[in-house]
Formats: sequence, C-alpha cells, structure tokens
Amino acid sequence: MVPPDHVRLMMVIAYDGTRYEGWQVQTIGTGVQEKVEAALAALFPSKPRVHSSSRTDTGVHALGMVAHFDLPRRECRIPLRQLPLAINAHLPPDIRVFSVRRAPPDFHARFSALGKQYRYQLWNHPVMNPLLRWMAWHVPRPLNLAAMRQAAAHFLGTHDFRAFSANPGYPRASTVRTVRRCEWRRSGPLLTCIIEADGFLYKMCRGLVGTMVQVGLGKYQPDDIPRMLASGDRRLAGMTAPAHGLILWKVFYPRRTPPTTAATTGAIEPPADE
Amino acid sequence: MVPPDHVRLMMVIAYDGTRYEGWQVQTIGTGVQEKVEAALAALFPSKPRVHSSSRTDTGVHALGMVAHFDLPRRECRIPLRQLPLAINAHLPPDIRVFSVRRAPPDFHARFSALGKQYRYQLWNHPVMNPLLRWMAWHVPRPLNLAAMRQAAAHFLGTHDFRAFSANPGYPRASTVRTVRRCEWRRSGPLLTCIIEADGFLYKMCRGLVGTMVQVGLGKYQPDDIPRMLASGDRRLAGMTAPAHGLILWKVFYPRRTPPTTAATTGAIEPPADE
Repeated sequence: MVPPDHVRLMMVIAYDGTRYEGWQVQTIGTGVQEKVEAALAALFPSKPRVHSSSRTDTGVHALGMVAHFDLPRRECRIPLRQLPLAINAHLPPDIRVFSVRRAPPDFHARFSALGKQYRYQLWNHPVMNPLLRWMAWHVPRPLNLAAMRQAAAHFLGTHDFRAFSANPGYPRASTVRTVRRCEWRRSGPLLTCIIEADGFLYKMCRGLVGTMVQVGLGKYQPDDIPRMLASGDRRLAGMTAPAHGLILWKVFYPRRTPPTTAATTGAIEPPADE
Repeated sequence: MVPPDHVRLMMVIAYDGTRYEGWQVQTIGTGVQEKVEAALAALFPSKPRVHSSSRTDTGVHALGMVAHFDLPRRECRIPLRQLPLAINAHLPPDIRVFSVRRAPPDFHARFSALGKQYRYQLWNHPVMNPLLRWMAWHVPRPLNLAAMRQAAAHFLGTHDFRAFSANPGYPRASTVRTVRRCEWRRSGPLLTCIIEADGFLYKMCRGLVGTMVQVGLGKYQPDDIPRMLASGDRRLAGMTAPAHGLILWKVFYPRRTPPTTAATTGAIEPPADE
C-alpha cells in the first residue's frame, strides 16, 4: 500500500527493447527498469523504485508497459502533465514515458492488472523488409494463413498453457489462463498476431506464435493444438518465436484506472486484411 | 539502349536510409548505390553499373526503389528468382533487393518511369514513439488534420512547384508537375501522407509535407497554398520536412513492365482512419 505522505503515480512506458536485456534490473547488461529509475532519481531525491506490470525478455519491445512508483508529497512539485517531458529528458531515446497520472489508492501495476495484450509482428516474404528488421520476425517461406487462424481459434478460452510456457514456474503455481483474443491480421507481407489474455506464463506468447507459425508452415495441423494443450508437455508444442517481433501493447486495469493507451492506440495499428 | 549480347535486368530495392548519404555514390560517406554495385561486382565479373529511377537524399528510406543494370549473357548463370538471395548475401541488412526481373528491351529505370509515390510518416504526440524514431518525424504539437487535408487538396493537379523545391535545377528545366494523389491517413498518433506525382523536383515532397504540417499547426491557412504555388518563390512556401520520415514507396512504369511492388505492398500500410 502507499506509504503515508506519499502519492502513488502510474506511468505508461514505451521502449525499443533491442539494446536492453529486458525490463528488469540486470547484473550483466542493462535493463529498462534501471534507466527509468535513474531518470526518476535525477528528478526526485527519494529515488523511487519502479514497479512494473510485467517483465519482458531481452529484445522484447513495449508500447504500453505500465509501472507505478510512490513519491513523497513534498517532492510533488512538477505538474503531472509536465512529468513525461521532464523524465524523458533523462532517458535515452529508445525509452519513453508516455504519461504519468495519479494512481487509484489501492493500485498496483502488477496485481491490479486484469490482463494484457501483446502483438507479434512477422514479415512473410523471401526477402526481409529492412525497415522492420528490429521489430518483425523474418519468415521467408509461404505461410498458410487460414490454417494459422484455425490454430489461433483453438487457443481461445480457458486452458492450461503449461505446454506453451518455457518455464511454468513453481510446480504448484496455476498455469491456467484465459485467452480472450488470438487473431492474425495481414497487411501485405506483414502479419500481426494480437493475443490478449488475463495473464501470460513465461514465454507463453512466443510459444503460441511459434506454434501457429509452424502450423502455417505445415509442420503441425490446427487440430494438433488441443492435443498439445492437453499434454502439458512443452516438448510436444511448437517453437518459441524470437523476441524481437514481440511488443507489449497494452495492460488492462479496472475501469476507474486512468487510460493506458491514450498515447499509443494505433501506434503500429495493422489494418484489416486487404 | 542495351549493349549487344547483354540482357537488361530491373531490380526493386528497399533500404533503411539512416546510415547512408542517399542513393548516389558519395565522395564522403556511403551511398546505397555503391553497396548495391559492390554486391553485383561480387557476383558478376563485368561489375555492372546500376542505374536508378531516382536519387534519394541522406536519411530518406525506400521500399520501392527501382534500378536496372545490364549483364553480359555469358554471366547469366544464376536463375533470376535466386538472384535476390544471392545479391542480398553481399549486402548489409539495411539494404535488400526484393526482386530481379528481365526488363523490357527499351526499359530505363529513370526515363521509363511514369511517376512515383512517396509516403511520409509523422508521429503527432507530445512524446515520441521509440519504435518509430528512425522513420517518422516527431511533431509534438496538436495538428489540425482537417486543415492539412484542405491544404493537400490544393496540391492536386498540374502546377508549377518551383516554390516547393529546394533547388529547381537548370533555370530552363520545367518545374511543372502533376500531383495525382496527396492525402493524409491517420492511425492514432501516426500520420501518413501519400503523395503521388508524375515526377518530383528536388526536395519537393518534403516541401509539400512541411508546408501542410505548418498549415496543421496554424502557421498558414489552406488557402495560402495557391498563392504559394503562384509565387514560384521558395521563401514564401513552408518548411522542408526532415528526411527520415520519407519513404520512396513505388515507381510506376507502363503496364508491360514487371511489378515494382509485389513484395512491398502494405509493408507499412497505414489503415484507413479510425
């Protein structure tokens, strides 16, 4: 809970994950979190710790990472709407704070989250698009999009996703999740997968995408998905898609929470199929 | 014309212009052309010269640059459909040959062109999107999109665009061009301008975009455009938008010419307004 005489603030943060070893503070390499905390430390003597909604892996990007931090009231001198500019002045250009708002009193970036949406981009053409090389997985061989969509439909709903997680965590932690959206959009050679769930296991999103791509390549059939899910065995599911195609797009919170995509809706909005 | 015992081949080339001093060979810095010619030289003893449809400035990108080169028949050993892969093996990852095809006998990448389409991206939000920092102009202040669209309408048709060119060239060279498309699309904070013309003067596209943005900022009125056009005076028109937001999207040729965007249609296709 918020310490006395402190206010809790929530931030929406975007970053190009290419140069970072993920969100969290690292012993080797740089995490996004330490850059954000260093920027806050430059502005606030209390050097607040930043608590994120999620952890992202090395190379994964974000346009809607949410985090909160607590600020002593005496340090609240900069108007909230000017805070992003002030914080960004201390950040490298590949990390940006989009907004800072008062958080509801009981807000926690991670525990208040109702779900998240990730988007995964891949470039399906023999030749890679140079402008997308840091943000899309190059899949040169033809993909059967109809089959991939059938596979996607199998992931909808509540399932035990153990077979699609690289490390399901504590043996007793539940690996059951509810996927509310799992769809592919196409814009020429650019394919985008939108996956939304109440939560994600470690590397689950990339496991789903990798498996759907292998269905698209003909290695698996869409109807293999229920069998994979039921097995709970990672070795029976498909590959893990590479990190650089993945973008944490949005984190969902209860209605009374300030918006977390006002700044980023449509950032790289893929159009409906053409 | 094609020398005897040679075949003329046409290429569609994409590049991230960030690291280059434009297309053409440079004395200081690196042009994209020399990289492409070096790659061809690695494959073909005749070391063919590459002739492009256009020249792009430092920092400008391309997804549909077209170029031709002539190859002695005796050197035509690699099947055309395998040539992109072979050439790309000798190119840095920010330059890619999308296709190589037989050109019609009288084809010239520049003189056979009927027109070109450029797309210009800008990010209209106080905070820049880190994933687009190399490919979109950050315009933090609010833009009046309706006014920009009115301004865009004034550019349609045949006009003397001298007032929008940084260097109109030889005094006697015609500065009259026909703009067939000039429209803005919006996807959240991402604005994309699509401009198509039978030809472009030096920095004309960026002059049009910069002026339309200044209309959007309220510095000019849409109805100022005809006056600017009529003046023929660069000083009376608006600013030149920065290079990194500009992408050469497609070059148009007569119908019997092989396609020049089969690979790239929809590469970063902006959706219709939302």
